[in-house]
Amino acid sequence: MFRTHSCGELNISHLNQKVTLSGWVSVIRDKGFMIWIDLRDRYGITQLILDEQRTDKSLMEKASKLGREFVIQATGTVIERESKNPNIPTGEIEILVEAIEILNESKVPPFTIEDKTDGGEELRMQYRYLDIRRNPVKEKLIFRHKIAQEVRKYLSDKDFLEVETPVLIKSTPEGARDFVVPSRMNPGEFYALPQSPQTFKQLLMVAGLDKYFQIVKCFRDEDLRADRQPEFTQIDCEMTFVEQEDILNIFEGLLRHLLKTVHNIEVDKFPRMTYAEAMKKYGNDKPDIRFGMEFHELNDLAKGKGFEVFDKEELVVGISAPTLNSYTRKDIDRLLEWIQRPQIGARGFVWVRVNEDGSFKSSADKFYSQEDLKAFADRMNAQKNDLMLIMAGNANDVRKQLSALRMELAERLELRKPDEFAPLWVVDFPLLEWDEDEKRWFAMHHPFTSPKPEDISKLKTNPGEVRANAYDMVLNGNEIGGGSIRIHDQKLQSQMFELLGFTKEQAQEQFGFLMNAFQYGAPPHGGLAFGFDRLVSILDGSETIRDYIAFPKNNSGRDVMIDAPSPIDKSQLDELKISLKK
Amino acid sequence: MFRTHSCGELNISHLNQKVTLSGWVSVIRDKGFMIWIDLRDRYGITQLILDEQRTDKSLMEKASKLGREFVIQATGTVIERESKNPNIPTGEIEILVEAIEILNESKVPPFTIEDKTDGGEELRMQYRYLDIRRNPVKEKLIFRHKIAQEVRKYLSDKDFLEVETPVLIKSTPEGARDFVVPSRMNPGEFYALPQSPQTFKQLLMVAGLDKYFQIVKCFRDEDLRADRQPEFTQIDCEMTFVEQEDILNIFEGLLRHLLKTVHNIEVDKFPRMTYAEAMKKYGNDKPDIRFGMEFHELNDLAKGKGFEVFDKEELVVGISAPTLNSYTRKDIDRLLEWIQRPQIGARGFVWVRVNEDGSFKSSADKFYSQEDLKAFADRMNAQKNDLMLIMAGNANDVRKQLSALRMELAERLELRKPDEFAPLWVVDFPLLEWDEDEKRWFAMHHPFTSPKPEDISKLKTNPGEVRANAYDMVLNGNEIGGGSIRIHDQKLQSQMFELLGFTKEQAQEQFGFLMNAFQYGAPPHGGLAFGFDRLVSILDGSETIRDYIAFPKNNSGRDVMIDAPSPIDKSQLDELKISLKK
Repeated sequence: MFRTHSCGELNISHLNQKVTLSGWVSVIRDKGFMIWIDLRDRYGITQLILDEQRTDKSLMEKASKLGREFVIQATGTVIERESKNPNIPTGEIEILVEAIEILNESKVPPFTIEDKTDGGEELRMQYRYLDIRRNPVKEKLIFRHKIAQEVRKYLSDKDFLEVETPVLIKSTPEGARDFVVPSRMNPGEFYALPQSPQTFKQLLMVAGLDKYFQIVKCFRDEDLRADRQPEFTQIDCEMTFVEQEDILNIFEGLLRHLLKTVHNIEVDKFPRMTYAEAMKKYGNDKPDIRFGMEFHELNDLAKGKGFEVFDKEELVVGISAPTLNSYTRKDIDRLLEWIQRPQIGARGFVWVRVNEDGSFKSSADKFYSQEDLKAFADRMNAQKNDLMLIMAGNANDVRKQLSALRMELAERLELRKPDEFAPLWVVDFPLLEWDEDEKRWFAMHHPFTSPKPEDISKLKTNPGEVRANAYDMVLNGNEIGGGSIRIHDQKLQSQMFELLGFTKEQAQEQFGFLMNAFQYGAPPHGGLAFGFDRLVSILDGSETIRDYIAFPKNNSGRDVMIDAPSPIDKSQLDELKISLKK
Repeated sequence: MFRTHSCGELNISHLNQKVTLSGWVSVIRDKGFMIWIDLRDRYGITQLILDEQRTDKSLMEKASKLGREFVIQATGTVIERESKNPNIPTGEIEILVEAIEILNESKVPPFTIEDKTDGGEELRMQYRYLDIRRNPVKEKLIFRHKIAQEVRKYLSDKDFLEVETPVLIKSTPEGARDFVVPSRMNPGEFYALPQSPQTFKQLLMVAGLDKYFQIVKCFRDEDLRADRQPEFTQIDCEMTFVEQEDILNIFEGLLRHLLKTVHNIEVDKFPRMTYAEAMKKYGNDKPDIRFGMEFHELNDLAKGKGFEVFDKEELVVGISAPTLNSYTRKDIDRLLEWIQRPQIGARGFVWVRVNEDGSFKSSADKFYSQEDLKAFADRMNAQKNDLMLIMAGNANDVRKQLSALRMELAERLELRKPDEFAPLWVVDFPLLEWDEDEKRWFAMHHPFTSPKPEDISKLKTNPGEVRANAYDMVLNGNEIGGGSIRIHDQKLQSQMFELLGFTKEQAQEQFGFLMNAFQYGAPPHGGLAFGFDRLVSILDGSETIRDYIAFPKNNSGRDVMIDAPSPIDKSQLDELKISLKK
């Protein structure tokens, strides 16, 4: 037996007990006449003590030779500490050591195994197995485990079945970003790894399973943005005989359950916002509503006053930033530079200071009177010491730019509080997006997304105005889940394919398999999928997905710890009947 | 709203309620003046009724045109049935229909959606989404879901953390059966899909996570035996600071929990049997102990009587098959043919009938007196009307052959009762196996398996006798899980590599990555993995893994439903910088 207790559980109630602990030497302080060792395991840290008076000389010597991260087993008696540490559960006691066994030695680790380490990102990723020993990393993985358990509990209690769908599936022509897997048994043929189990979950509805979920790995072979991974995890869900309302209720219930369970936070019924409203009010289909600074449109007030910059543009729109009248002229100039960066690409903004005395000072004073600015302020509900920031441009662009500015200011003003959770539904997404390059409509979600029944008549006359039965769950400025009611009617599906510019043959080639299944009694169904990595990180008050993945890959899709991907043997290529191209 | 209730929940307590159900038309009986419809969903079947007296004519007409597997929504009133069906929960009531909406039509399915279908295996696999509508298939998937939930519950309650390990990993030279995945972003380089998360779970122990589990997909690109799948699911587990005893206790607790939860069966502490004993007594390292027919060795009794067939062989061993004296000479001849099939490859057996009157009749009467045969019978504890079957050969071969015979007879005698569960541990496996072709030792489990401390001294002198701290959990004649205590001591590990014929360079190339990690304080650890597909099927009293997988592949590794694997576009190959060989 390696231990009687973990390093996290002993306290004053165990006084005088003889115990055995096993763990890692976290800190060792050797005063010669006295040695303290912080022994660490997953559950905590317990202090070991040895001293001249009470400890064998040979044991003192043995202890003095221990190094950091040595694995030891220590036996001794629980005693009361002289100087207690109220910050840890074991802080009132220590172990007067009677025996130590060295279970394994350790080289000096390449960075310190402490909450604040001296190791850089790259080094820590290379030695991820040491990084995970650090509390902040370990706790994130424990948090992820808890969320997964609670998700499963909630959905199982609601009669959802977790069904494993295959990982080795079929590549489809539109699956340009599929990872493919050559089959040894079927030379020249390939499996593909799923970008999502979309087809299979719809088949499970055709199969009558009624309520499906799965916490499942998905794969995408694409250029990786800062916070994307080639393999990622989804909570994938689908339900039969439901309308959008049923789905929204079940899944906002899930998030409420998680917030209640892990943070003891009660959340009201989620607000719902149409896509159109979200774009108008926040310039963003995943608005962070933890704070205000909503957009206010000023066309009627700002145009026609001789200020050409505003007059010539489609939309004049602004936000009022609380307390930012404190910004100096230099601060404002720097903010201006910030929004002019290519990533945002705004040309500029007009600023209006709301002074303490109720007067205004603006960068466009030449064109706008105090009265005009007062009208702006009234529209924006600006308060004393606010700084109004007003931009103009074509509606789509300027909204996006102003949204970036709003989020940046929220960061600076610390309005994005990590322990506050403001979920909402964004609904009524457009069914279609017009692609200016290809001069055709694309499905905004996917070709199986159902239009709103009341908009179907517009499919022929005005496709751009057709709204979908599609919905995103948004939390603190992040889309954490999204889905739709699917089309189960074959005629409507054909109409959709036509609209998307598929010939019958193309539709058959790409989606024939699912279409065929739909001929055998496809029920009305719909669902959604959560990005699990993101959900977990946001629920933990972070936006860094990578920290919540045990063994993440870097921006090149590389696992620097195991050094994958890597070349493989020629013999292996030969067996697979493939060869490399220069 | 599509339904007020499911098709499985209405009963006499709902009498006179107005309800709406949605589901599939399972059976329709049209007597002209009266129409009954069995409406089916995942939860059950509810009978709908329409008749001339009480139903609108137009509705009768609509109903008469429904086909099997049409998806409909029906509204009506719960009434008491005239002829009740006590076999289903809804059997006392029916719905007097007031409205029907056809939600979707269906083509005639290619086989009947009934418990006993007319569809063959291949057809059902091709239309798996229809096959799953059948109760026996659906219930197996529900059973699997329940087992997965209970496994997670049990392990989480015991402080195990479910950690997702990567699916895109590194191919190793010994991974000849790895599926590989070309990386678009790293041309010429490949990921591999894991055959198991072995390395990662050991790293998680080095990382201090203490107790890990994962229900996880694993992959093996190999010729598929009847009941193997290229992707399969494991319950993968690992623990730190444990000895073999700790692991056996935790995981027999898991199986006990499952048996209790799903079958309400209480199982005692598992018997333990050494590998040597299992081989001697059952000729098999995964003995089915639901029944007897143990092996009895007869060298001392059978040799030296002039029967050369026995005299010249290493081992004479037999079993006594209860009641099989009923076999005619022809039956016995056919049994003889059966064991002579190349799959088993036995040359023959000697049979001895134990007659009602206590006399014996044997195929080797010429060499053995009644007294000799009585001695055989005493040794084997043979009863009246038993048929003793005795084989000879070199020990390894003959045990294997006799084991096959024992299992076959158990099937015929219906001793392998699907609702009986007889788990055991097989322990003390040999550490090494001698490969006659390559003239070297191979690790029986893997090179990280720890030898028993008391056997370490034999590593140099008599490697074949060294036993491992390795164990298999066996249930009803199937290995459902297996694992070992790992080597965490680097010196011992080096010794193992040497013994296995690895040069230092080779060891570094193949295992260097894990070895490096072990230099930073690797704790004592061990674990095991269950084959989840098999575990589920055996717990459900079946041995057909495929039935418990939603979308299984066939013996060629092919998903006949989606037709994968399949050729991919040349453009896709080009992007991956690979080409096909002729």
